[in-house]
Amino acid sequence: MKIGIIGLGLIGASLALDLSSKNYHLVGVSRNSLTCEKAKEKGIVKESGVDLALMKDCDLIFICTPIEFIIPTLINLIPHLSPHAVVTDVGSVKSSIVQQGKALWSNFVGSHPMAGTANQGIDSAQKDLFQKAVCVITPEHDTPQSAIALITNIWSLVGCEIIITTPQIHDQAVAWISHLPVIISANLINSCQRENDQNIKQIAQKLASTGFKDTSRVGGGNPELGLMMARNNKENLLHSLKHYQQNLEELINDIEQENWDKINTLLNTTKENRSKFL
Amino acid sequence: MKIGIIGLGLIGASLALDLSSKNYHLVGVSRNSLTCEKAKEKGIVKESGVDLALMKDCDLIFICTPIEFIIPTLINLIPHLSPHAVVTDVGSVKSSIVQQGKALWSNFVGSHPMAGTANQGIDSAQKDLFQKAVCVITPEHDTPQSAIALITNIWSLVGCEIIITTPQIHDQAVAWISHLPVIISANLINSCQRENDQNIKQIAQKLASTGFKDTSRVGGGNPELGLMMARNNKENLLHSLKHYQQNLEELINDIEQENWDKINTLLNTTKENRSKFL
Repeated sequence: MKIGIIGLGLIGASLALDLSSKNYHLVGVSRNSLTCEKAKEKGIVKESGVDLALMKDCDLIFICTPIEFIIPTLINLIPHLSPHAVVTDVGSVKSSIVQQGKALWSNFVGSHPMAGTANQGIDSAQKDLFQKAVCVITPEHDTPQSAIALITNIWSLVGCEIIITTPQIHDQAVAWISHLPVIISANLINSCQRENDQNIKQIAQKLASTGFKDTSRVGGGNPELGLMMARNNKENLLHSLKHYQQNLEELINDIEQENWDKINTLLNTTKENRSKFL
Repeated sequence: MKIGIIGLGLIGASLALDLSSKNYHLVGVSRNSLTCEKAKEKGIVKESGVDLALMKDCDLIFICTPIEFIIPTLINLIPHLSPHAVVTDVGSVKSSIVQQGKALWSNFVGSHPMAGTANQGIDSAQKDLFQKAVCVITPEHDTPQSAIALITNIWSLVGCEIIITTPQIHDQAVAWISHLPVIISANLINSCQRENDQNIKQIAQKLASTGFKDTSRVGGGNPELGLMMARNNKENLLHSLKHYQQNLEELINDIEQENWDKINTLLNTTKENRSKFL
């Protein structure tokens, strides 16, 4: 089987590396010809280049570009595709991509492998990046079973635990556990930084320890990723944020009213419920 | 020099352990006679018992009880104190304790060693717990310099980096970087858990990964500690929470209005500013 990878960054190159080692014939496309050369030199792919025509004989193609280029890439790719080719992407938001992708190519199935590191680019590619990672596959009701089976099979081969759900449920779920945390964490840093009293701010900066470090980590991470989440999952993120805001108001009110028993119950419940998410 | 430790839990027993190894004469008091026996057996203290009269010859006394027992303990301790004795505590909120403590005993100086583990009790005592930890010392304007110097010296000896500030600035700073994170983190878990659609909640629980894990850690931690912070630092916590709430409203509005440039700038700023706190 010939597998194409478009976009040879951390995700694309790591996936190509794992699949090459399992004796698939890998073809890579990148907009950057230097990256194409590197991919061949490193033995990550058999063939590579900047031209999407290279994908013409591929049975399965992964679009691993940044999220905003997924659909434009698919549009440019379609003239070169074999009729039976299955196409997937690795974007972290699914509804809009799957809706458009499926309308353009009936063998399109969305994926979201939840793996990564803090690094980017082909040089950060690593073997076994997907081992034990969750990969969400998001077919629509009329997606061909054969396409779902092929994609499930390949992600399983590189070590993923597969979850199949709808694009809509995926996007609502990641709004809660991935996109909402980024915003509330960024808002923590922003709020601390906005303290007007320089004495208090300086001491706060000196005293900040593991609690602040962990709670602020995702809000102080890659700004492009945060912006991409907000832009592409706007409605679901707003839904989560508004519920968060309401609950926070209730909690502030409980502290003001000194409803300590209620707050005690809440904190016991959050301790218990956190483990259900981990 | 004879040093007394009242409360032989994680902090008190670890401190006694470090000071014993530096050849101070340590006297321990605990409400629990079994703990007193253990402290002697383990060589953590030379003398121990349940009676505060044991503190009569001590030059320096650390009150290491839970925060709500600090002032009641000091009141019961005073009849036994040598006139020159210096007393400190290790509570994580300082204004109210220092105000009351100083009024009761002029040689009272507040401390807050920012060290700990997830464990509690004498069995969790560990050597060098305070190495490289920040210890905040919070004198009032008329606290005797000799008392400040003695306490600074002893915390430095066990490895702390000393910060001297007022009780008020300490409490406002910890509200920002320690107590606010607990509440916003607990509110994240609470909000995710309150999602009514069981499909979405179940998928969210399966997909939650390192981002959710880190952002929810302190909100899913020891409920007693969280409650203690809210009760004892209520006004400062509310001040931080209300600023947080206002900033979040602004951010929600920016997402609604698709002010992507502004959000992009914010996320770049939080990335930059986070490092100032760590």
